[in-house]
Amino acid sequence: MKNDQPDSGRRRLLAGSAATIAAATLGREAAAQAAAPAAPAAKPALPGYVAWKNQDHMIVHTSTTIETKRSAFGTSIVTPSDRLYIRNNLPAPDASIVANRDAWQMAVEGVRQPRTLSVADLKGMGLETMATVLQCSGNGRGYFADKPSGTKWSVGAAGCVLWSGVPVRTVVAALGGLADGARFMTGTGGETLPAGIDPKTIMVERSVPVRTFEDALLAWEMNGDPLPHAHGGPLRLIVPGYSGVNNIKYIKRLAFTEQETEAAIQKTGYRMSPPGAKGDPSHPSVWEMDVKSWINGPAPEAGTVKAGWVQIQGVAMGGTRSLRRIDVSLDGGQSWQEARFVGPDLGRFAWRQFVLPVQLKPGQYMLASRAQDVQFNWQVEASPENGGGYLNSGWRSHAFPLTVA
Amino acid sequence: MKNDQPDSGRRRLLAGSAATIAAATLGREAAAQAAAPAAPAAKPALPGYVAWKNQDHMIVHTSTTIETKRSAFGTSIVTPSDRLYIRNNLPAPDASIVANRDAWQMAVEGVRQPRTLSVADLKGMGLETMATVLQCSGNGRGYFADKPSGTKWSVGAAGCVLWSGVPVRTVVAALGGLADGARFMTGTGGETLPAGIDPKTIMVERSVPVRTFEDALLAWEMNGDPLPHAHGGPLRLIVPGYSGVNNIKYIKRLAFTEQETEAAIQKTGYRMSPPGAKGDPSHPSVWEMDVKSWINGPAPEAGTVKAGWVQIQGVAMGGTRSLRRIDVSLDGGQSWQEARFVGPDLGRFAWRQFVLPVQLKPGQYMLASRAQDVQFNWQVEASPENGGGYLNSGWRSHAFPLTVA
Repeated sequence: MKNDQPDSGRRRLLAGSAATIAAATLGREAAAQAAAPAAPAAKPALPGYVAWKNQDHMIVHTSTTIETKRSAFGTSIVTPSDRLYIRNNLPAPDASIVANRDAWQMAVEGVRQPRTLSVADLKGMGLETMATVLQCSGNGRGYFADKPSGTKWSVGAAGCVLWSGVPVRTVVAALGGLADGARFMTGTGGETLPAGIDPKTIMVERSVPVRTFEDALLAWEMNGDPLPHAHGGPLRLIVPGYSGVNNIKYIKRLAFTEQETEAAIQKTGYRMSPPGAKGDPSHPSVWEMDVKSWINGPAPEAGTVKAGWVQIQGVAMGGTRSLRRIDVSLDGGQSWQEARFVGPDLGRFAWRQFVLPVQLKPGQYMLASRAQDVQFNWQVEASPENGGGYLNSGWRSHAFPLTVA
Repeated sequence: MKNDQPDSGRRRLLAGSAATIAAATLGREAAAQAAAPAAPAAKPALPGYVAWKNQDHMIVHTSTTIETKRSAFGTSIVTPSDRLYIRNNLPAPDASIVANRDAWQMAVEGVRQPRTLSVADLKGMGLETMATVLQCSGNGRGYFADKPSGTKWSVGAAGCVLWSGVPVRTVVAALGGLADGARFMTGTGGETLPAGIDPKTIMVERSVPVRTFEDALLAWEMNGDPLPHAHGGPLRLIVPGYSGVNNIKYIKRLAFTEQETEAAIQKTGYRMSPPGAKGDPSHPSVWEMDVKSWINGPAPEAGTVKAGWVQIQGVAMGGTRSLRRIDVSLDGGQSWQEARFVGPDLGRFAWRQFVLPVQLKPGQYMLASRAQDVQFNWQVEASPENGGGYLNSGWRSHAFPLTVA
């Protein structure tokens, strides 16, 4: 459970100062009003390219791996952009690419009439808005018992995001439909690759089953803003229900192909290999996300609340399917109570928020949740350990202890 | 239509500088990256208490009346907090009230077991999340022909917002139900009133029909953040489908009463009086919002686009009812085409986004929209002129001209 309380050291440091505690726990506007002295930097600060994020709500693992605190998701379904996680496989292209967003170009191949389209072209072709869970393939890695290498994400490499853009199926239809033999949709990121290295070894290029094009979106807006550069702007491929790496940032090429890309990130990376082993094409690719849920409140980091009525709340997702049920356990899975979904349903690729009101007496509790999708698939108790530490959706390891005083 | 192009003067001023144009039209992160020199302050700057808002997207009428630019709503349904409009009837209470949000107290009266509850108490009682249109009673005032006094809002004193809090019906049930004879739900704001003035003449206290308590929410969170102080935090009464003034900020008293409050803001203010006349209790109160829609793109401020395919998009709301249809006109209402709702439906109190793809040839167009609710009520062509300039939902005055080159 250590990964679940990443902030305890910092909080101890701050414990003596009411003003700095206020600054750490309140929204930015209140913090600014309080004019608190700067807190000692016990945790790495946000790097410059995401300085616009809210430091109070983020856990900075490295400059390119930054997660949302479990206490910071709120209960408004949509994850505010200023606390959405960051995970980049390569340094981003120069920020100048968002100076003229409409001029960004993307080649479309593997259609009957291949063409290069600008964002301006795409904006004229169609408009759709959808909510999806964006979740890093390695979210939950920190909960695997055998500690695979890679960032030890807890729950916060995920968010529920509103995207606007043009449906891929609309673009495909406008270009005459898919070419014969297309079995994969392959997206290529626009990152600048260093010279002198075989591009295939480092480029961000991913293939997903071709059927995904029916739901996929080419997005230029996120949560009401032009898609931030740090999240892939000017243009990102959104593959709903598929883990983060498949949602290609700065997309410069969208190809419908007979074969999967030979890029290392596809061929050997993001594979469900056995523990301790490297990936190879014989292992399943990290594609669709599983049914999963976790509890975000009360007090996931403090770990203690007063006795009385408490609304236990969290989020649940079905991967590519809607949910039918969510259960909550107070005793680490020995017994379960059905909880209630709350708030508008943003569609099968979004997550849903749930709540269970309980009257808690003093004592020790272990809060867990398990979701079930409309095809009656339950969230698993434990996900299989794997070499890359991917797709951890096990309810047992995502539980957290709560002390009621 | 002058009110629709509030920024044209500023844009002309900036026309010579590519860097400042980038700063004015891009997101903040891009602007920061571009390190543009400061633009000349041709428009009033945001006041300090809302300095966290995005200046590029706001029109500052006065320090307490600030609207969203028509071009700034985006197409992600939910209005980002950093560009949601501001309209305050009184100076806000001291910002120190959000230093300990859970300690804020509200008296509940007119129930069988009256009680004063803290936000902490309320958080234990229930949790609901909903989307509502928050719209100033005077939104659209600038489009009334006889120019009633008051802020000349165009479309931007409105937004679609996600709220989290406890349903009022849950609180009422916990306190034994409504007392006999309750005909109104009366909310009182926690603003500090100046001494030496009869409180009734200036206090923010509004009564709405008691039936509204079934849908109302006591909200402590907005769009995933603790409710900003500028928007009524720590606690605000949300009366879904009712215009802004009825959604009491800093609520300190919620009373179920036999009579409407005697406060001037209810008795004579916010009444649908005849043009030129002051309000009195014989005039209808400004309560429920009407079915309404408007177009936000393309180019509501620039007013010019290139010929070709264009996605005409906007927002439509049903007040207290869901929508069944939305039409768009390119010729100022001489002919109509049915448009398509896009994106998830956030419920009957939210707005919906719509789109109509059209191939535009060079020429002059007048873009209008009209919505119809599930009870077959059409948005009106023109709202009745009234003394306060309230509830303007007429489609004709909300149209805007577009030049296609």
